Amino acid sequence: MNSAHSQWFEASIAQLNDLQNLRVWSIIVSLFGDLAQRPGDQISGTTLTRIITPMGIKPEAIRVALHRLRKDGWIESERSGRASVHYLTGFGRSQSAAVTPRIYARNPQVPESWHLLVAEEGNGQGSGRSSGQGNGPDRGQNALEEALLLPQYISINRSTALGHGTVPTGLDDLFVAVVSDLDAPRWLQARLFPDDLVQACQLLLAALRTIAPPADISAVQIATLRTLIVHHWRRIALRHPDLPDRFHPTDWSGETCRALVFDLLDRLPKPTLEALDQSPPTP
Amino acid sequence: MNSAHSQWFEASIAQLNDLQNLRVWSIIVSLFGDLAQRPGDQISGTTLTRIITPMGIKPEAIRVALHRLRKDGWIESERSGRASVHYLTGFGRSQSAAVTPRIYARNPQVPESWHLLVAEEGNGQGSGRSSGQGNGPDRGQNALEEALLLPQYISINRSTALGHGTVPTGLDDLFVAVVSDLDAPRWLQARLFPDDLVQACQLLLAALRTIAPPADISAVQIATLRTLIVHHWRRIALRHPDLPDRFHPTDWSGETCRALVFDLLDRLPKPTLEALDQSPPTP
Repeated sequence: MNSAHSQWFEASIAQLNDLQNLRVWSIIVSLFGDLAQRPGDQISGTTLTRIITPMGIKPEAIRVALHRLRKDGWIESERSGRASVHYLTGFGRSQSAAVTPRIYARNPQVPESWHLLVAEEGNGQGSGRSSGQGNGPDRGQNALEEALLLPQYISINRSTALGHGTVPTGLDDLFVAVVSDLDAPRWLQARLFPDDLVQACQLLLAALRTIAPPADISAVQIATLRTLIVHHWRRIALRHPDLPDRFHPTDWSGETCRALVFDLLDRLPKPTLEALDQSPPTP
Repeated sequence: MNSAHSQWFEASIAQLNDLQNLRVWSIIVSLFGDLAQRPGDQISGTTLTRIITPMGIKPEAIRVALHRLRKDGWIESERSGRASVHYLTGFGRSQSAAVTPRIYARNPQVPESWHLLVAEEGNGQGSGRSSGQGNGPDRGQNALEEALLLPQYISINRSTALGHGTVPTGLDDLFVAVVSDLDAPRWLQARLFPDDLVQACQLLLAALRTIAPPADISAVQIATLRTLIVHHWRRIALRHPDLPDRFHPTDWSGETCRALVFDLLDRLPKPTLEALDQSPPTP
């Protein structure tokens, strides 16, 4: 590997590292989700270290993070002689699988069929002030709060929820309106896509634009870059619902970011676990 | 006129009189609206008295009411010798014409195209607590309150209005949703059709069901009955918006009432003013 190449790789890492403080355990979750999510997939300790240390993370920090992930039931580790291998537990796999469709959606299906649930009156102070008598307005407020626990509902204000998909039946205490068209005002856009998320997205976009992988990049280097890209994208993708354009603030760059993420992942095709274990060491 | 006939007439009047306290000036407004609304229409004092006194209203009360209506600019009166004639002023005619379509709608066009306006947050205490700083939520609340001044809007709760017809543009501070289907909960039905209105409607319906006009009824008697029917119906028709069935409480008899009102008015065809002036005196 020539020196220009090595500089390119380090510069790309630096761009992606600058974005925010990296939590090592969270990086490892992104890594397994991207490279070793299937049952039977396992990654050697050596390979894991070779993928992660270029991010400026020390082997000791990786060991601490793996310990935490084992304690939380995400990861199991096995020793064979001096080597160790790590793999997702059933729980870890199911947690990972649950968010994979949202992280890896190139063209997310944005909901177009909406309905509104409106309660008689917001109770002003949240559910804590319930009179306990189960009167009409309280029952409506409770029904609304229950709906808002479901992923397909967005809170519009204290007494209103916007949902997509099938209109529920049996919500007798709520005014239910099927929506055929809507216009999201700025305050709603700002609630769904808060400023710090908009900004994180713009920073990731700027970083991604600097990355043009050369042809002769190694499998481990691909894994490092993929992990960082997926990790940052995951923190954006999972923080906002997939919504049509009219819900986006004018400065929302999420969809451009998404396009660039998948363009880069295409140009950095996922290495097999065998290729990673056999990848020659970086000079 | 035979005695059975006379009893029938008095019984019908009694049924309709029992419904609520009659305000004489309001009866006269109903009467002119029904019988003498066109420019040039005028009713003699004698005829007016003959139509109204069977309701148990004394000539003196009619004179007082006419005096009030003249003072309020509704009615003008002229004397010719010992006789007097009364007619609606331009103002009275326009007031009357403004509500005629709603009172006399046999098959009211119920709106089917709805939209919802949702403000960011109700301010909890009505407009009196506005901060005066014109921040976002206040602007939204103001836009909502302005919309609610228009007849095509219904208040759902502090932060939500349901409107029909064209969706307004330029309401940037409100969440605007075009509605293709809706389900009105009981609390909304009860707000639009309050208990006392539901009850007034049931009482009128019961009264109307007892009235079967014989063929040989006089023009003045027809006028008396029409005036009472229109008067009671007007007090119901103008107190609720014309809405599709799903907004009606299950015990709402308004549409049955409407059908019976127009059936009776058909069977009591409006006499001409000449026929009224020439109608033979009741024995």
